Amino acid sequence: MPEVDGFWGVVPAGGAGTRLWPLSRAARPKFLLDLTGSGRTLLQGTVDRLTPLTGDRVVVVTGASHAEAVAEQLPQLGADRVLAEPAPRDSMAAIGLAAAVVERADPGAVIGSFAADHVIPDAETFRTAVREAVEVARDGHLVTLGVEPTHPATGFGYIRAGDALTGFPTARRAREFVEKPDVERATAYLASREYLWNAGMFVVRAGALLDLLAQWHPELAAGVRAIAADPERLDDIWPGLEKIAIDHAVAEPAAAAGRVVVVPAPFGWDDVGDFASLSTLLPAAEGPMTVVGDPADVTAVDAEGLVVAAGGRRVAVVGLDDVVVVDTPDAVLVTTRARAQDVKQVVDALKASGRSDLT
Amino acid sequence: MPEVDGFWGVVPAGGAGTRLWPLSRAARPKFLLDLTGSGRTLLQGTVDRLTPLTGDRVVVVTGASHAEAVAEQLPQLGADRVLAEPAPRDSMAAIGLAAAVVERADPGAVIGSFAADHVIPDAETFRTAVREAVEVARDGHLVTLGVEPTHPATGFGYIRAGDALTGFPTARRAREFVEKPDVERATAYLASREYLWNAGMFVVRAGALLDLLAQWHPELAAGVRAIAADPERLDDIWPGLEKIAIDHAVAEPAAAAGRVVVVPAPFGWDDVGDFASLSTLLPAAEGPMTVVGDPADVTAVDAEGLVVAAGGRRVAVVGLDDVVVVDTPDAVLVTTRARAQDVKQVVDALKASGRSDLT
Repeated sequence: MPEVDGFWGVVPAGGAGTRLWPLSRAARPKFLLDLTGSGRTLLQGTVDRLTPLTGDRVVVVTGASHAEAVAEQLPQLGADRVLAEPAPRDSMAAIGLAAAVVERADPGAVIGSFAADHVIPDAETFRTAVREAVEVARDGHLVTLGVEPTHPATGFGYIRAGDALTGFPTARRAREFVEKPDVERATAYLASREYLWNAGMFVVRAGALLDLLAQWHPELAAGVRAIAADPERLDDIWPGLEKIAIDHAVAEPAAAAGRVVVVPAPFGWDDVGDFASLSTLLPAAEGPMTVVGDPADVTAVDAEGLVVAAGGRRVAVVGLDDVVVVDTPDAVLVTTRARAQDVKQVVDALKASGRSDLT
Repeated sequence: MPEVDGFWGVVPAGGAGTRLWPLSRAARPKFLLDLTGSGRTLLQGTVDRLTPLTGDRVVVVTGASHAEAVAEQLPQLGADRVLAEPAPRDSMAAIGLAAAVVERADPGAVIGSFAADHVIPDAETFRTAVREAVEVARDGHLVTLGVEPTHPATGFGYIRAGDALTGFPTARRAREFVEKPDVERATAYLASREYLWNAGMFVVRAGALLDLLAQWHPELAAGVRAIAADPERLDDIWPGLEKIAIDHAVAEPAAAAGRVVVVPAPFGWDDVGDFASLSTLLPAAEGPMTVVGDPADVTAVDAEGLVVAAGGRRVAVVGLDDVVVVDTPDAVLVTTRARAQDVKQVVDALKASGRSDLT
């Protein structure tokens, strides 16, 4: 399949992945890690997934402290394709800046924004959905990919789909974005077949996105366009930009105005939020113990679960079910998949005890 | 309390402590370790316990590969007080050699033999029992200290006590030594109040022990006496010595012949066989997690059990009860107290996979 003319990938690379400690750290966030042992980091996997559509037309937006690591992981991108945020200003400023940079480089371009730390095993199906989204976006729509839910998740927001869009195979009007539901509501959403997971994947003409932004947050739109016009103004303008998520800034009001289209995304998707999530993404293990790293480093006796052997040491587990052991050079975590969400509390405790050097 | 005239301590320092892996290794066996974080190793603790009775009259028998480490840990002993076995020949040869060396240095001396890797928290009560045992032994008896059982243990042999010995506060005739019982038998032993645990603690005149040995194993008795007379013959004689435990070689036949006395030992005693055993010996923790090492290295969230922080790294445990985590520089073990005995299987698996360097 050929590349898609005038289509640019935008990859916001942020977020620490606190619940994946001690693998992820402030200085070595989730997107820089090869969590699944695939040989590619989540960031590299995200760009790899886009490259057949975009060629080298990919822009990564990341914190200034990670820009060098991002550039090292993506040597195929020029240095000007890695945009460094002086400080976090939430997703609208990040994606808006990328949109403004692309708008100047390639007026009329369509951008697709995909977080650097998500996993989509079926890249072909992903790209088929993106191709349709790009064609819809060329008409000026704000298009989002809505992941078809597989269970009543309470950890994601949802998109309520409406009528089919004439002339496209699967695209539908998006009626509204809804916040993370409680479990009853999530169950009703799943049963209705009307709701899709909001995975934060947006496809839109760069100029159209900024024009929408200009309607509701004119100073933010003007700010990112000014930086794109004169990158030397970044440090001046950036701190004054409004801190707001793209969903609130543009997607929700645009949906209310009938300007959003959703393309159902019939592919597996995971935001690798914790070790329980990670363990579902790994290839089936030969024995009851799933291993990330060299299985020869792990001795499991009557034990079942996940071992991440990233410390260069022997890891031995005896007589535990559903155990998670994550070994790194300076810290080892022992928990269960059932308690994987609570790993965040370790990071909080370390910060509280003055050991931010470990977080 | 004064020292006991003519009383010598004999400390056989052998055994790897396989079920305490990865703390204990072939090259760093249990007795060389400070398992409880007391600041003293088990070997040092054993000698410390004896010194008020013996002064510097202590002989340690250990494998040649550990002799240097033993001497380093016990600088108060002269180099000639550490006897190095060229190869393991079981406990009779080890204790017999020590007895022969003491017999030459101090004819008429009484020796007390106490394994280097046991823990006895109440040293005063221990010494009171030993003082009585020494007085009994001066009459030529083979005296053993029998630990008063606290539960129907199946992991120890037992001593069946008989009539009280006239003239001593607690000593009784020993009727027989019995092997490790099954649980029904152990329960009956406990209920009968006739049986004591055989902790392998013997007190006897050095010459009397060797004379008893000469009755049943004359070549072994002659061999160790010949080495004591001319230490240069050690390497010649040692490999030909019979490999037999002191219980089988002397204690059991002497009991059958009515020559053994048992002094009940009303003190806590533990052979620190595994991490479950170790955890009972540690001071009560402030929280639900018992820590050996620096508690500041451990972050426990809703977790209970034992952490040995000996790796110089952060150990974090989230949401597990009865967990045992042992962190060392080159290996980490995760198990439960309930499965602590099965740690031996890790060592077996490592040997089978050619990783004896880790055992």
